[in-house]
Amino acid sequence: MGLFSKDIKTLNDLFVHTLRDIYYAEQQILKALPDMIEKATDPALKQGFKSHLEETRNHVARVEQVFKMHGVDAKGVDCPAIDGIIEETEEIAGEVDDKQVLDAALIAAAQAVEHYEMTRYGTLIAWAKQLGRSDCASVLAQNLEEEKAADMKLTKMAETNVNRKAA
Amino acid sequence: MGLFSKDIKTLNDLFVHTLRDIYYAEQQILKALPDMIEKATDPALKQGFKSHLEETRNHVARVEQVFKMHGVDAKGVDCPAIDGIIEETEEIAGEVDDKQVLDAALIAAAQAVEHYEMTRYGTLIAWAKQLGRSDCASVLAQNLEEEKAADMKLTKMAETNVNRKAA
Repeated sequence: MGLFSKDIKTLNDLFVHTLRDIYYAEQQILKALPDMIEKATDPALKQGFKSHLEETRNHVARVEQVFKMHGVDAKGVDCPAIDGIIEETEEIAGEVDDKQVLDAALIAAAQAVEHYEMTRYGTLIAWAKQLGRSDCASVLAQNLEEEKAADMKLTKMAETNVNRKAA
Repeated sequence: MGLFSKDIKTLNDLFVHTLRDIYYAEQQILKALPDMIEKATDPALKQGFKSHLEETRNHVARVEQVFKMHGVDAKGVDCPAIDGIIEETEEIAGEVDDKQVLDAALIAAAQAVEHYEMTRYGTLIAWAKQLGRSDCASVLAQNLEEEKAADMKLTKMAETNVNRKAA
Protein backbone atom coordinates (compact mmCIF):
# COMPACT_ATOMS: atom_id res chain seq x y z
CA MET A 1 0.00 0.00 0.00
CA GLY A 2 1.25 3.49 -0.75
CA LEU A 3 1.82 5.19 2.56
CA PHE A 4 -0.12 8.37 3.22
CA SER A 5 -1.84 8.01 -0.11
CA LYS A 6 -5.26 7.71 1.52
CA ASP A 7 -5.85 4.49 -0.37
CA ILE A 8 -8.38 3.24 2.17
CA LYS A 9 -11.71 4.88 1.52
CA THR A 10 -14.30 2.38 2.73
CA LEU A 11 -14.72 -0.31 5.38
CA ASN A 12 -14.34 -2.80 2.55
CA ASP A 13 -10.93 -1.31 1.66
CA LEU A 14 -9.94 -1.56 5.33
CA PHE A 15 -11.11 -5.20 5.44
CA VAL A 16 -9.04 -6.09 2.35
CA HIS A 17 -6.00 -4.23 3.71
CA THR A 18 -6.21 -6.07 7.03
CA LEU A 19 -6.72 -9.40 5.26
CA ARG A 20 -3.46 -8.67 3.41
CA ASP A 21 -1.82 -7.78 6.73
CA ILE A 22 -2.75 -11.13 8.31
CA TYR A 23 -1.79 -12.95 5.09
CA TYR A 24 1.71 -11.46 5.34
CA ALA A 25 1.77 -12.20 9.09
CA GLU A 26 0.84 -15.87 8.62
CA GLN A 27 3.60 -16.23 6.02
CA GLN A 28 6.18 -14.69 8.36
CA ILE A 29 5.04 -17.08 11.10
CA LEU A 30 5.49 -20.00 8.67
CA LYS A 31 9.09 -18.85 8.20
CA ALA A 32 9.74 -18.32 11.94
CA LEU A 33 8.31 -21.59 13.28
CA PRO A 34 11.04 -24.00 12.05
CA ASP A 35 13.60 -22.05 14.09
CA MET A 36 11.36 -22.19 17.16
CA ILE A 37 10.89 -25.95 16.67
CA GLU A 38 14.66 -26.35 16.52
CA LYS A 39 15.25 -24.22 19.63
CA ALA A 40 12.58 -25.89 21.82
CA THR A 41 13.85 -28.58 24.20
CA ASP A 42 10.70 -29.82 25.94
CA PRO A 43 9.32 -32.62 23.71
CA ALA A 44 5.68 -31.54 24.13
CA LEU A 45 6.58 -27.94 23.24
CA LYS A 46 8.57 -29.05 20.19
CA GLN A 47 5.62 -31.19 19.08
CA GLY A 48 3.21 -28.31 19.77
CA PHE A 49 5.19 -26.00 17.50
CA LYS A 50 5.28 -28.71 14.80
CA SER A 51 1.50 -29.11 14.95
CA HIS A 52 1.11 -25.34 14.80
CA LEU A 53 3.27 -25.21 11.68
CA GLU A 54 0.77 -27.55 10.00
CA GLU A 55 -2.14 -25.44 11.28
CA THR A 56 -0.45 -22.28 9.99
CA ARG A 57 -0.27 -23.77 6.49
CA ASN A 58 -4.04 -24.30 6.71
CA HIS A 59 -4.51 -20.72 7.93
CA VAL A 60 -2.68 -19.39 4.87
CA ALA A 61 -4.90 -21.56 2.64
CA ARG A 62 -8.06 -20.30 4.39
CA VAL A 63 -7.02 -16.65 4.01
CA GLU A 64 -6.41 -17.35 0.30
CA GLN A 65 -9.90 -18.86 0.15
CA VAL A 66 -11.35 -15.65 1.64
CA PHE A 67 -9.48 -13.51 -0.93
CA LYS A 68 -11.06 -15.67 -3.65
CA MET A 69 -14.56 -15.54 -2.14
CA HIS A 70 -14.25 -11.77 -1.85
CA GLY A 71 -12.93 -11.41 -5.41
CA VAL A 72 -9.63 -9.70 -4.58
CA ASP A 73 -5.99 -10.59 -5.27
CA ALA A 74 -4.28 -12.73 -2.65
CA LYS A 75 -1.30 -10.61 -1.72
CA GLY A 76 0.39 -9.44 1.46
CA VAL A 77 1.16 -5.96 2.75
CA ASP A 78 4.01 -5.14 5.07
CA CYS A 79 3.01 -5.68 8.67
CA PRO A 80 5.45 -3.93 11.03
CA ALA A 81 3.57 -5.41 13.99
CA ILE A 82 4.33 -9.06 13.22
CA ASP A 83 7.84 -8.12 12.07
CA GLY A 84 8.42 -6.50 15.48
CA ILE A 85 6.95 -9.44 17.39
CA ILE A 86 9.14 -11.92 15.49
CA GLU A 87 12.22 -9.67 15.83
CA GLU A 88 11.66 -9.59 19.59
CA THR A 89 11.35 -13.39 19.63
CA GLU A 90 14.70 -13.75 17.87
CA GLU A 91 16.36 -11.21 20.16
CA ILE A 92 15.17 -12.86 23.35
CA ALA A 93 16.07 -16.33 22.09
CA GLY A 94 19.58 -15.03 21.41
CA GLU A 95 19.93 -13.78 24.97
CA VAL A 96 18.88 -16.90 26.85
CA ASP A 97 21.43 -19.58 27.53
CA ASP A 98 19.70 -22.17 29.74
CA LYS A 99 17.51 -24.54 27.70
CA GLN A 100 14.67 -24.66 30.23
CA VAL A 101 14.55 -20.86 30.50
CA LEU A 102 14.62 -20.68 26.70
CA ASP A 103 11.53 -22.91 26.53
CA ALA A 104 9.69 -20.48 28.84
CA ALA A 105 10.80 -17.56 26.64
CA LEU A 106 9.70 -19.38 23.46
CA ILE A 107 6.24 -19.98 24.90
CA ALA A 108 5.91 -16.29 25.80
CA ALA A 109 7.02 -15.32 22.30
CA ALA A 110 4.60 -17.74 20.64
CA GLN A 111 1.75 -16.42 22.78
CA ALA A 112 2.52 -12.85 21.64
CA VAL A 113 2.20 -14.10 18.07
CA GLU A 114 -1.09 -15.90 18.85
CA HIS A 115 -2.52 -12.79 20.50
CA TYR A 116 -1.66 -10.68 17.47
CA GLU A 117 -3.45 -13.13 15.21
CA MET A 118 -6.43 -13.38 17.57
CA THR A 119 -6.98 -9.62 17.57
CA ARG A 120 -6.68 -9.35 13.77
CA TYR A 121 -9.03 -12.29 13.09
CA GLY A 122 -11.50 -10.93 15.66
CA THR A 123 -11.52 -7.59 13.84
CA LEU A 124 -11.75 -9.17 10.38
CA ILE A 125 -14.70 -11.34 11.43
CA ALA A 126 -16.59 -8.31 12.82
CA TRP A 127 -15.95 -6.32 9.65
CA ALA A 128 -16.87 -9.23 7.35
CA LYS A 129 -20.21 -9.58 9.14
CA GLN A 130 -20.82 -5.82 8.90
CA LEU A 131 -20.08 -6.02 5.17
CA GLY A 132 -22.64 -8.81 4.75
CA ARG A 133 -19.93 -11.42 4.20
CA SER A 134 -20.88 -13.99 6.81
CA ASP A 135 -19.41 -16.61 4.49
CA CYS A 136 -15.95 -15.00 4.79
CA ALA A 137 -16.49 -14.53 8.54
CA SER A 138 -17.11 -18.28 8.95
CA VAL A 139 -13.86 -19.22 7.24
CA LEU A 140 -11.87 -16.67 9.27
CA ALA A 141 -13.55 -17.91 12.46
CA GLN A 142 -11.96 -21.32 11.90
CA ASN A 143 -8.51 -19.69 12.01
CA LEU A 144 -9.47 -17.66 15.10
CA GLU A 145 -10.62 -20.77 16.96
CA GLU A 146 -7.37 -22.60 16.15
CA GLU A 147 -5.26 -19.62 17.31
CA LYS A 148 -7.21 -19.49 20.57
CA ALA A 149 -6.78 -23.23 21.09
CA ALA A 150 -3.03 -22.97 20.36
CA ASP A 151 -2.72 -20.12 22.88
CA MET A 152 -4.54 -22.14 25.56
CA LYS A 153 -2.34 -25.18 24.93
CA LEU A 154 0.74 -22.98 25.39
CA THR A 155 -0.61 -21.58 28.67
CA LYS A 156 -1.22 -25.10 29.91
CA MET A 157 2.27 -26.29 28.93
CA ALA A 158 3.83 -23.26 30.64
CA GLU A 159 1.85 -23.58 33.84
CA THR A 160 1.98 -27.34 34.28
CA ASN A 161 5.53 -28.03 33.23
CA VAL A 162 7.83 -25.57 31.44
CA ASN A 163 7.84 -22.70 33.98
CA ARG A 164 8.47 -25.10 36.84
CA LYS A 165 11.46 -26.63 35.05
CA ALA A 166 12.77 -23.14 34.21
CA ALA A 167 12.58 -21.92 37.82
CA MET B 1 20.14 -5.43 27.06
CA GLY B 2 23.20 -6.41 25.10
CA LEU B 3 22.04 -8.44 22.16
CA PHE B 4 23.35 -11.97 21.88
CA SER B 5 25.27 -11.52 25.09
CA LYS B 6 23.33 -14.31 26.81
CA ASP B 7 22.44 -11.95 29.65
CA ILE B 8 19.36 -13.97 30.60
CA LYS B 9 20.42 -16.95 32.69
CA THR B 10 17.44 -17.66 34.94
CA LEU B 11 13.64 -17.40 34.93
CA ASN B 12 14.08 -14.43 37.25
CA ASP B 13 16.26 -12.67 34.65
CA LEU B 14 13.61 -13.40 32.02
CA PHE B 15 10.90 -12.01 34.33
CA VAL B 16 12.86 -8.78 34.89
CA HIS B 17 13.62 -8.44 31.16
CA THR B 18 9.94 -8.86 30.27
CA LEU B 19 8.91 -6.42 33.00
CA ARG B 20 11.24 -3.89 31.36
CA ASP B 21 9.72 -4.75 27.98
CA ILE B 22 6.17 -3.98 29.19
CA TYR B 23 7.44 -0.86 31.01
CA TYR B 24 8.81 0.47 27.72
CA ALA B 25 5.61 -0.61 25.93
CA GLU B 26 3.33 1.20 28.41
CA GLN B 27 5.40 4.36 27.97
CA GLN B 28 5.16 4.17 24.17
CA ILE B 29 1.39 3.72 24.50
CA LEU B 30 1.25 6.82 26.74
CA LYS B 31 2.94 8.73 23.90
CA ALA B 32 0.69 7.27 21.16
CA LEU B 33 -2.69 7.76 22.84
CA PRO B 34 -2.99 11.58 22.55
CA ASP B 35 -2.75 11.25 18.76
CA MET B 36 -5.43 8.54 18.77
CA ILE B 37 -7.67 10.74 20.95
CA GLU B 38 -7.23 13.58 18.46
CA LYS B 39 -7.96 11.37 15.44
CA ALA B 40 -11.08 9.68 16.88
CA THR B 41 -14.40 11.16 15.79
CA ASP B 42 -17.01 9.08 17.64
CA PRO B 43 -17.49 10.81 21.04
CA ALA B 44 -17.65 7.53 22.99
CA LEU B 45 -14.45 6.31 21.32
CA LYS B 46 -12.67 9.60 22.01
CA GLN B 47 -13.76 9.40 25.64
CA GLY B 48 -12.73 5.73 25.82
CA PHE B 49 -9.22 6.60 24.65
CA LYS B 50 -9.06 9.46 27.19
CA SER B 51 -10.03 7.09 30.02
CA HIS B 52 -7.47 4.60 28.80
CA LEU B 53 -4.77 7.28 28.89
CA GLU B 54 -5.51 7.72 32.60
CA GLU B 55 -5.49 3.94 33.12
CA THR B 56 -2.17 3.69 31.27
CA ARG B 57 -0.60 6.19 33.68
CA ASN B 58 -1.71 3.90 36.51
CA HIS B 59 -0.26 0.88 34.68
CA VAL B 60 3.13 2.57 34.48
CA ALA B 61 2.94 3.32 38.21
CA ARG B 62 2.02 -0.29 39.02
CA VAL B 63 4.90 -1.65 36.94
CA GLU B 64 7.22 0.74 38.84
CA GLN B 65 5.75 -0.62 42.07
CA VAL B 66 6.61 -4.19 40.96
CA PHE B 67 10.19 -3.15 40.12
CA LYS B 68 10.46 -1.74 43.64
CA MET B 69 8.89 -4.80 45.30
CA HIS B 70 11.26 -7.02 43.35
CA GLY B 71 14.29 -4.88 44.18
CA VAL B 72 15.38 -4.05 40.63
CA ASP B 73 15.84 -0.79 38.74
CA ALA B 74 12.79 0.58 36.96
CA LYS B 75 14.01 0.88 33.40
CA GLY B 76 12.77 -0.03 29.95
CA VAL B 77 14.29 -2.19 27.23
CA ASP B 78 13.60 -1.75 23.54
CA CYS B 79 10.46 -3.59 22.54
CA PRO B 80 10.34 -4.02 18.74
CA ALA B 81 6.89 -5.62 19.10
CA ILE B 82 5.11 -2.56 20.50
CA ASP B 83 7.13 -0.30 18.19
CA GLY B 84 5.84 -2.33 15.24
CA ILE B 85 2.26 -2.32 16.48
CA ILE B 86 2.32 1.46 16.97
CA GLU B 87 4.07 2.01 13.62
CA GLU B 88 1.32 0.02 11.94
CA THR B 89 -1.32 2.12 13.72
CA GLU B 90 0.23 5.32 12.42
CA GLU B 91 0.56 3.93 8.90
CA ILE B 92 -3.05 2.80 8.69
CA ALA B 93 -4.33 6.05 10.20
CA GLY B 94 -2.40 7.89 7.49
CA GLU B 95 -4.07 5.88 4.76
CA VAL B 96 -7.70 6.29 5.80
CA ASP B 97 -9.59 9.38 4.70
CA ASP B 98 -13.19 8.85 5.84
CA LYS B 99 -13.66 9.68 9.54
CA GLN B 100 -16.02 6.79 10.26
CA VAL B 101 -13.70 4.27 8.60
CA LEU B 102 -10.81 5.81 10.55
CA ASP B 103 -12.68 5.17 13.81
CA ALA B 104 -13.02 1.48 12.88
CA ALA B 105 -9.28 1.37 12.04
CA LEU B 106 -8.37 3.07 15.34
CA ILE B 107 -10.37 0.51 17.33
CA ALA B 108 -8.60 -2.35 15.52
CA ALA B 109 -5.23 -0.73 16.23
CA ALA B 110 -6.04 -0.17 19.90
CA GLN B 111 -7.16 -3.80 20.22
CA ALA B 112 -3.82 -4.98 18.79
CA VAL B 113 -2.12 -2.94 21.52
CA GLU B 114 -4.41 -4.36 24.22
CA HIS B 115 -3.75 -7.92 23.05
CA TYR B 116 -0.01 -7.36 23.19
CA GLU B 117 -0.30 -6.12 26.75
CA MET B 118 -2.63 -8.95 27.73
CA THR B 119 -0.22 -11.61 26.55
CA ARG B 120 2.76 -9.98 28.30
CA TYR B 121 0.93 -9.47 31.59
CA GLY B 122 -0.42 -13.04 31.43
CA THR B 123 3.13 -14.34 31.03
CA LEU B 124 4.56 -12.07 33.76
CA ILE B 125 1.87 -13.17 36.22
CA ALA B 126 2.59 -16.87 35.57
CA TRP B 127 6.34 -16.32 36.00
CA ALA B 128 5.89 -14.20 39.15
CA LYS B 129 3.83 -16.99 40.72
CA GLN B 130 6.44 -19.59 39.72
CA LEU B 131 9.12 -17.41 41.33
CA GLY B 132 7.13 -17.24 44.58
CA ARG B 133 6.22 -13.59 44.02
CA SER B 134 2.44 -13.75 44.35
CA ASP B 135 2.61 -10.17 45.65
CA CYS B 136 4.03 -8.99 42.30
CA ALA B 137 1.54 -11.22 40.44
CA SER B 138 -1.37 -9.51 42.24
CA VAL B 139 -0.25 -6.03 41.21
CA LEU B 140 0.30 -7.13 37.60
CA ALA B 141 -3.12 -8.82 37.58
CA GLN B 142 -4.74 -5.42 38.17
CA ASN B 143 -3.18 -4.16 34.93
CA LEU B 144 -4.21 -7.33 33.08
CA GLU B 145 -7.83 -6.98 34.20
CA GLU B 146 -7.95 -3.35 33.05
CA GLU B 147 -6.46 -4.24 29.66
CA LYS B 148 -9.04 -7.02 29.22
CA ALA B 149 -11.86 -4.63 30.19
CA ALA B 150 -10.56 -1.97 27.76
CA ASP B 151 -10.44 -4.57 24.97
CA MET B 152 -14.01 -5.68 25.68
CA LYS B 153 -15.25 -2.07 25.68
CA LEU B 154 -13.61 -1.55 22.28
CA THR B 155 -15.26 -4.70 20.88
CA LYS B 156 -18.64 -3.46 22.12
CA MET B 157 -18.14 0.02 20.63
CA ALA B 158 -17.12 -1.51 17.29
CA GLU B 159 -19.97 -3.99 17.09
CA THR B 160 -22.80 -1.78 18.35
CA ASN B 161 -21.92 1.47 16.65
CA VAL B 162 -18.61 2.24 14.94
CA ASN B 163 -18.52 -0.56 12.32
CA ARG B 164 -22.12 0.15 11.30
CA LYS B 165 -21.36 3.83 10.76
CA ALA B 166 -18.19 2.92 8.83
CA ALA B 167 -20.02 0.55 6.48
